[in-house]
Amino acid sequence: MTAPLDLKACIRNIPDFPKPGIMFRDITPLLGNPAAFRETIRRMADHYRDEGVTSVAAAEARGFIFAAPLALELNAAFVPVRKPGKLPFDRHAFEYELEYGTDALEMHTDAVKAGDRVLLVDDLLATGGTMQACARLAEQCGAHVVGCAFVVELTFLPGRRKLAGYDVLSLIQYADET
Amino acid sequence: MTAPLDLKACIRNIPDFPKPGIMFRDITPLLGNPAAFRETIRRMADHYRDEGVTSVAAAEARGFIFAAPLALELNAAFVPVRKPGKLPFDRHAFEYELEYGTDALEMHTDAVKAGDRVLLVDDLLATGGTMQACARLAEQCGAHVVGCAFVVELTFLPGRRKLAGYDVLSLIQYADET
Repeated sequence: MTAPLDLKACIRNIPDFPKPGIMFRDITPLLGNPAAFRETIRRMADHYRDEGVTSVAAAEARGFIFAAPLALELNAAFVPVRKPGKLPFDRHAFEYELEYGTDALEMHTDAVKAGDRVLLVDDLLATGGTMQACARLAEQCGAHVVGCAFVVELTFLPGRRKLAGYDVLSLIQYADET
Repeated sequence: MTAPLDLKACIRNIPDFPKPGIMFRDITPLLGNPAAFRETIRRMADHYRDEGVTSVAAAEARGFIFAAPLALELNAAFVPVRKPGKLPFDRHAFEYELEYGTDALEMHTDAVKAGDRVLLVDDLLATGGTMQACARLAEQCGAHVVGCAFVVELTFLPGRRKLAGYDVLSLIQYADET
C-alpha cells in the first residue's frame, strides 16, 4: 500500500504576490510533477465520470491546463473561453465586475448547444466571478452546467456562495492566507 | 480498415481575421472533436516518444491546450511560459520583436534545469518569434531543446527558418492564405 498522493504538498506558497498581504498558491510545482498532475486530472474525472459530460470548458489561461486533459479523459469536447478579441467566429459575451472596473469573457456560439452537459474547470476558486461568467456563457448556448471543478479553493472568500445552485468540486482548500 | 483521421478537415477557415487579408485557421472545431484532439496529441507524442523528454513547455494561452495533455502522455513535467506579471516565483525573461514594438515571455528559473530535455509546443508556427523565445528561456535554464511541435504551420512565413537548428514538427500545413 502506498499513501495517497498529497496534492497540497505540491503547491508552493508565495507571500505578497501579486500584492502585499496576499499568499499566492503557486500550482507550477504540481504541474512539474507528472504523478501529481495525473492524479489531479484523475480525481476530477472520477467525480464526473458518470455524469454524461459532453463538453469541458475553461477560461484562459490556467484553466486550459486542466480542462484539456480532463476533456480527453472524459472523451468530451474541449471548449475555450477567452478574453475579447481572441475567438474568430460568432461569439456570446458576458461582462462581469472586478474590484475596480469590469472584464468580459467570450465563447463561440457553436461551442456548445442545447442538451449539452458542460463541465467547467479552473485552477482556483476565489471570488467565483470568472466561473460564473463561464456558466452564464454555456447557459446562453442552451447547455446544462454539470459542475464547476477547481484544483484550489480559498474557502475564506465567497466563491462557493456565488456559485450556489451548481455542483462545486475542489481538491485542495485553504481557510486563510497562511 | 478505417481511413486515417483528416486533421486538416477539422480546421475552420475564417477570412479577414484578425485583420483584412488574413485567413485565420481556427482550431476550435478540432478541440471540439475528442477523436481529432486525441489523434493530434498521439501524433505529437509518437514523434518524440523515444527522445527522453523530461519537460513539455508552452506559451500561454493556446499552447497550454496541447502541451498539458502531451506532458501527461509523455510522463513529463508541464512548464508554463507566461507574459510578464503572471508567474510568482523567480523568473527568466526574454524580450522579442513584434511587427510594431516588443513583447516578452517569462519562465520560472526552477522550471527546467541543466540536463533536462525539453519539448516546446504551440498551436501555430507563423513567424516563429514566440517559439524562439520559449527555446531561449529553456536554454537560459541550461536545458536541451528536443524539438518544437506545432499543430498548424504556415509554410509561406519564415517560422521554420527562424527555428533553424531545432527539430520542427507540424501536423497540418498551409502554403498560402486560401
